[in-house]
Amino acid sequence: MAVQTQRPGAGLQAFFEARGIAIIGASDDITKIGGRPVHMLVKYGYAGPVYPINPKGGTIQGLPAYASVRDTPTAPELAILAVPAAATPAALRDCAARGVKAAIVLSSGFVEAGPQGAALQDELVAIARENAMRVLGPNCLGAVNVADRLIGSFSIALEEHMPPAGQVGIVSQSGNVGSHTMQSVARRGMGVSRFIATGNEADVDVADGIAALAEDPATRIILCCMETCRHAGKLIEALRMAREQGKPVIVLKIGSTEKGQAAAASHTGALTGSDAVIDAIFRRHGVLRVRSVEALIDIGHAASLLMPGRLPRNDAVTLVAASGGFGIMMADAMSEAGLALPSLAPHTQARIREAVPTASTGNPVDASAQMSSRPDILLKMLTALLDDPSESALALFMSLSLYNTRLRGIYLEALAQVRASHPDRLLMIISQGPAEAIEKINALGIPVFSSIDAAATGLAGLMRLGQLRAADAAPSREMAAEPVDPAVFRNEFHAKQALAQAGIDVPREIIARDADEAARAAEAIGYPVVLKIASEDIAHKTEAGGVALNLADAQSVREAYARVQANAARHSPRARIDGVLVAPMVRGGTEMIAGISQDPVFGPIVMVGMGGIYAEVLKDVAVQAAPVSEEEARAMIRSLKMFAILDGARGQPKADIDAAARTVARLSEFAYRHRGDIAEIDMNPILVRPQGQGVVVLDALMIPRAAPAL
Amino acid sequence: MAVQTQRPGAGLQAFFEARGIAIIGASDDITKIGGRPVHMLVKYGYAGPVYPINPKGGTIQGLPAYASVRDTPTAPELAILAVPAAATPAALRDCAARGVKAAIVLSSGFVEAGPQGAALQDELVAIARENAMRVLGPNCLGAVNVADRLIGSFSIALEEHMPPAGQVGIVSQSGNVGSHTMQSVARRGMGVSRFIATGNEADVDVADGIAALAEDPATRIILCCMETCRHAGKLIEALRMAREQGKPVIVLKIGSTEKGQAAAASHTGALTGSDAVIDAIFRRHGVLRVRSVEALIDIGHAASLLMPGRLPRNDAVTLVAASGGFGIMMADAMSEAGLALPSLAPHTQARIREAVPTASTGNPVDASAQMSSRPDILLKMLTALLDDPSESALALFMSLSLYNTRLRGIYLEALAQVRASHPDRLLMIISQGPAEAIEKINALGIPVFSSIDAAATGLAGLMRLGQLRAADAAPSREMAAEPVDPAVFRNEFHAKQALAQAGIDVPREIIARDADEAARAAEAIGYPVVLKIASEDIAHKTEAGGVALNLADAQSVREAYARVQANAARHSPRARIDGVLVAPMVRGGTEMIAGISQDPVFGPIVMVGMGGIYAEVLKDVAVQAAPVSEEEARAMIRSLKMFAILDGARGQPKADIDAAARTVARLSEFAYRHRGDIAEIDMNPILVRPQGQGVVVLDALMIPRAAPAL
Repeated sequence: MAVQTQRPGAGLQAFFEARGIAIIGASDDITKIGGRPVHMLVKYGYAGPVYPINPKGGTIQGLPAYASVRDTPTAPELAILAVPAAATPAALRDCAARGVKAAIVLSSGFVEAGPQGAALQDELVAIARENAMRVLGPNCLGAVNVADRLIGSFSIALEEHMPPAGQVGIVSQSGNVGSHTMQSVARRGMGVSRFIATGNEADVDVADGIAALAEDPATRIILCCMETCRHAGKLIEALRMAREQGKPVIVLKIGSTEKGQAAAASHTGALTGSDAVIDAIFRRHGVLRVRSVEALIDIGHAASLLMPGRLPRNDAVTLVAASGGFGIMMADAMSEAGLALPSLAPHTQARIREAVPTASTGNPVDASAQMSSRPDILLKMLTALLDDPSESALALFMSLSLYNTRLRGIYLEALAQVRASHPDRLLMIISQGPAEAIEKINALGIPVFSSIDAAATGLAGLMRLGQLRAADAAPSREMAAEPVDPAVFRNEFHAKQALAQAGIDVPREIIARDADEAARAAEAIGYPVVLKIASEDIAHKTEAGGVALNLADAQSVREAYARVQANAARHSPRARIDGVLVAPMVRGGTEMIAGISQDPVFGPIVMVGMGGIYAEVLKDVAVQAAPVSEEEARAMIRSLKMFAILDGARGQPKADIDAAARTVARLSEFAYRHRGDIAEIDMNPILVRPQGQGVVVLDALMIPRAAPAL
Repeated sequence: MAVQTQRPGAGLQAFFEARGIAIIGASDDITKIGGRPVHMLVKYGYAGPVYPINPKGGTIQGLPAYASVRDTPTAPELAILAVPAAATPAALRDCAARGVKAAIVLSSGFVEAGPQGAALQDELVAIARENAMRVLGPNCLGAVNVADRLIGSFSIALEEHMPPAGQVGIVSQSGNVGSHTMQSVARRGMGVSRFIATGNEADVDVADGIAALAEDPATRIILCCMETCRHAGKLIEALRMAREQGKPVIVLKIGSTEKGQAAAASHTGALTGSDAVIDAIFRRHGVLRVRSVEALIDIGHAASLLMPGRLPRNDAVTLVAASGGFGIMMADAMSEAGLALPSLAPHTQARIREAVPTASTGNPVDASAQMSSRPDILLKMLTALLDDPSESALALFMSLSLYNTRLRGIYLEALAQVRASHPDRLLMIISQGPAEAIEKINALGIPVFSSIDAAATGLAGLMRLGQLRAADAAPSREMAAEPVDPAVFRNEFHAKQALAQAGIDVPREIIARDADEAARAAEAIGYPVVLKIASEDIAHKTEAGGVALNLADAQSVREAYARVQANAARHSPRARIDGVLVAPMVRGGTEMIAGISQDPVFGPIVMVGMGGIYAEVLKDVAVQAAPVSEEEARAMIRSLKMFAILDGARGQPKADIDAAARTVARLSEFAYRHRGDIAEIDMNPILVRPQGQGVVVLDALMIPRAAPAL
C-alpha cells in the first residue's frame, strides 16, 4: 500500500478552470496531437488566452506562437504537452519555472514503452512534486470542461461536435473508453460536465478524478472507467467524497477475467488488482459496478432522468406487455437480475380489467393489444398500476410500437398524462423506435431501454443506486498496527491461542511433552481425543503420520503418543518438536474455511468459504478488505453459492451463521491489527454447528510477513 | 407422448400458396381483425381472388362480399376466420363443405379462455381431422408469404410496410414475438420468406412451421420463437428436415426460469417442458438456442450474411481495437462466451508492426488510433490479420468511428478492399454508427454488432452453427418397448441384477435368508462386507436400522444379521422381508449419481450428476432424452460444473470417465427399452474409480409406471 498524503483531487481545478493555456509542441496540422487542442480551443470558443508554443515561433493556426512558455505575455495556468517523450521533462521544467499550475502530457513513449520511458516518467513525477504542480498522464487523452470550452485533449470524439454541457462527469483511465463514453452520453441527449482521462497515472489517477467531480457543482453523476487501482486509501476517500455529495458513482472496471487481466497487464504496465477484491470494495463503498460500456451509459442515463426523487424504493417491479411471450421474457430477465415480482392488489387488478377487459392481471400483466387501442384506455390502465400500493417500479414493454405512427401518438399522449398525475413514481419503458419519439419520452423523466436484458440490468443497477445512502457498515481502519507474539507462527497451538484471545472459539487443547502428560491432558479434556504433533517444521501433519484420531482411553493415548513421535522423527529427523497437542475429538457441523491474504493495493483481505473439495473446486469463497463488521461477514457468508447448505437445505439443521460471521469479523480485526507482522492466516477447517451451538476452529496456521530469523 | 402420424408440415402449403382466400367475418373497419387482412391483401397486391364473407353481403372495402363461403364464385383454398369463438365451428364446417384446404383462426376465446373455450377448440380439431383440413390457431397471428403478398394475418407490424421478400423464415407460437421478430428482421435490411404464428396450436404447431420452412425453397434460415413443445417426435423430425436442407434453425425458447415458466403456464394453458430437457434436445439436433430476441435477430442476421461459406471454422477469434481498454473488454467477453484467442504467427505480427508501428500485437491486438489514420494503413493491417494461418475469425472494434465523416471514409474503403481480396474469411465489426454506413458494411457480407456483448454471444452462436453438420450422435430411438421382469421393482438386489444384465457393473451380492447363509455369503464375497435389509416395503434402509457396514468376520456378520432383521421388524412390522443382502464393503473413488425420469413430452430422460449434498444443492446434473450414446454421455459428464473433480483436480487421480459414460449410456438404453414399464430409476451412489478401474453401482431403485397390485 503506497502512502498518499495529498487529499484526492487536490489541485485539479487548474485542469478545468485554468485562465490561460499553453500548448507546447503546437502544430499547424489540426490532425496532429499538437494541432488538435489549439484548433478545438479556438473553434469551440475557450474564453482565456491560448498560447501555441513552438521553437519556430511565427503564427500557428492564426495565433501568435512563442518559442518557449517563458515568453508568453501572461503566465498560463495550464500547459498541454505534445512534444516527444524525451523532450517532455525539459518542457515541464519550463512550465514550472513559469508558474504553470497543471500540465497535461498527451505524448506517449513513457512507462508503456519500456525502461527508458519509465525513467522519463519518473522524472516527470519528480519535477511535479518539486514544484507542487499536478501532472495528468502521460499517454493520456487529457481533460475537458464542457461548459467553459476548456479542451485539454485531442479526442476524436470532439472533432465534429462538442457534447452539450450538463451534469454527467466522466473519469476514465483509458482515453478511448472515456471518449466513447462521452460521445455515447451526448448521443443519448445527456449533457457532460467534465471529462478527465488519466492514462499512465504518473501523478493524477482515477481517484483524483472522482474526487474532483465530487467537488464540481455542475456534476450530478459520475461515470468512471477504471483499469487499475494503485492507492486504496485514496480511492476510498474519493468515493466517500462522492457519497457525501449524494453523487452516484457508476464504474466500468476493465479486466475481470484472466484473459482480460493478462491484456490489462500488457496494456497499462500495472498489476490489475484482484477482481473479487475490487468488487468487494465497490460494494462496500456504494459504487455500482457495471460490466459493459452499454450498461454504464444505460444506467447513467436512467439515473440522470430519475434523480433525485424517482430511484427505486425497493426491489419490486411490475411488468406490463401487450403479449404473454414478452411478459415471460421480462419475468425471466428481471428474476435473474434479482428483482421481485409482487402480485398486484385485488383492487388494482379490478381497475386494470375495467380498463382492459382482455387483460390477464398477474405479474407480468398481459395487457393484450387492447391496451394501446386508445390513449384513455392506456392511461386508465397505467394509472391503476401506478396507484398500486406495492410502490414497485413499473416496466412497460412497447415492442416496436413507436415506429407505428398511430400507436406512437397513443403512447406519447398517455405517458405524458400519467407522468403529470404521478410525477414521483418510477416508470420505465422497453422499446425501440425513432430517436425523436424516444427523446420525447426521456423528456418526461422516463428512461427507455432498448432491450429486455438492458432493462433488467438497468433496473437492478438503479435499485442498488437507490440503496446507496445505506450506512457504511465497514469498521474503522483507524487502528494502529500492533506487533503479534511471534510464537503464533510456531505451531497451531499458539496460533489458536492467539485467536482465542481475539474472541474466536477454539477447542480446549493442551501441549503434552511425554506420554503421561498426554494421558493426563486427555483425562482433563475428556475422551475421545486426537493427538497432533506440534512442530513449526512440520506443516503437513497427516502426511508425516503426526495425527492420531478418536482415542478413547488413556492406554490408546499413551500408545498414540509414542507412535506420533516416532513417525514424526522418521519423517522429519531434523524437525524441532514442541510436543504433542492433545485436543478433543470434535464431530458434527458443517465445514467452512476462513483466512487472510494480502492484496498489494488493499492490504489484508479476509476470505470465507465452504470447506471440502467440492467447494474448493468451485472456488466458493467471498472476500472483503479487513476489517469487516459482523454484518458484512454475514453478507459474505450469505453470498456463497452453497449458502443453502448452512441455511438448512435437505432437512439438515440450520447452521450457526451468526457465530460464523462473528468468527470471520474477529479474524479480520485480528489480522488488521497485526497487519505489520502477519502475511497469511488459514483457519481450516472451521466446524459450524447447528444454530445456537457456535463454531469451533479446528486448525489454524499463520505465516509471518518476513521469514523469522533462524 | 402424444402420437403423431402425419409428417410435420404436411398440407401447410395452402397457408402460403393458396389460390383464393375467403375472410370470414370480414369488416369494413380496417383496424378490426376481420378488416385488416382484407385491407392488406388488397393494399399489398395479393394476386388471387379475395372473398370477404359477411352475412350482410354488399361490398366490403370495395370488394363484393358474400353471405357464406358456400356462395363465392370459385372455391377459395384458404379461409381466414375472424368471427367470435362460438361461431367458429359452424364457419369451419362451411369451409370444409366448400373444399377449403386450410383455415387460419385469428379469433381468441378458446382454450386460453377456460373450459367452454377448450370445448370449442376441441370441436375445431375434430372438424379439421374429419375433413383433412389444416387449421392454424386459434388465437393466432396467422401466416404470411411475403413474396406473394399472401397475408393471412392482422399483424400491426404490416400496417405501414411489408418487409422485403428474402430468405429468413419465421415461425413463432406467440404472435407478438413473431411479429416483433419480422419487423426487426426487416429493419436490419433482411428479407423475409414466410411467417407463421401458431397461437394455441390446436392443430398446426411450431414443428409443422419449421418443417414447412425447411421445404420452402425461398427460406435459407429459420428463426423460431417457441413456448411449448407438445410432440417430441414431430419436433425432432422437423429439425431433421431443416438440417438435411442445410438450413440453420435458431430458437428463442421462452420461459426458462421458474417465474417465466409460471407465466408461461398461465399464458398458453400448456405445460412448459422442463427447460434443461429442451436445451439438451436442441443441442442434440443441431439447433442454436438463444436467450433474447436481440440475439435471435443479431445471429440470424450475421448468419444470413455469412452463409454459406463464411461461418466460423473453429472456435478461434482474433480481436482488434484502437484501444487497449476495449481490447480487454473484448477479450473478457469472448473468453466468457467460450471462444479461444490464439496468438498470431510471428510473421503476421511483423506485418502488423510494419503497417502500424505503434501496435501491440498480442491477441487482442491494440492497434492504436494510428490504424485508422489512412485507408492503406488499415488495409495493410487487416490483410496481415486475414492472412494469418490460424484461420480464426476476425473481430474489429470500431467504437463510434462511423459517426465521424473522415474515419467513416477510411473504414469503408479499407473494408471493401479487404473483403474483395479475402472473400471467404469471417470478418465482423463491433460498431455503432449511421444506418447507411452500417448497411454498406453489411452489403460487403460483413456483420456489424452494436456491442461487445452482442458480438461475443453472436460469434459463439455462429460457431455452433458452423458445427451444425457434425453427425447426430444420438442412438436410434427405433427400438420396440420390451417388458421388464417385475422383480426389479421389488428390491435393490433384483434392480441391480437387471442392470448387470444390461452391462452395468454392480458389486457381487448374495441374498441371505438366515445368519449362516449370510456368513457363507460373506466368506464367498470376501471381507469386509455390508449387510442391507432387502424389502420392497422399506425404501429408506439406513433410517430403518437396516444397514450394517464394514463387517470384518463371520461372527460380526451373524450378529449383524440378527440386528438388521430385528431393527427392520421393529421399524416396519408389516414389511415383507426378502432376506438380507450381503455385499462387499466398497471404498475409494468419487461418488456420482445417475437416473431416469419421465418427461411428459420427451419420455424417458437420463440424468447424471455428482454425488453428495454439495452437488445436490447446486443441482449439478446433466440431462438428455434416452437413449444416449457413450459419446453423448461423456459430453454430459464433461458439462458438469464439478467435472474438474473427476478430471484430477487438487492432485487426485483422474476418474474412469469412460466407464462412467458407458454406464450412463447403458442405463439410458435399458430405460428406453423398458419405457413401457419403468417410470424412474435411481442409481445412487455410483462409485467412479480411478482411470482404468471402472465404476460400481452401489445402490439402485426402480419405480414402475403404475403401482403394482398389492
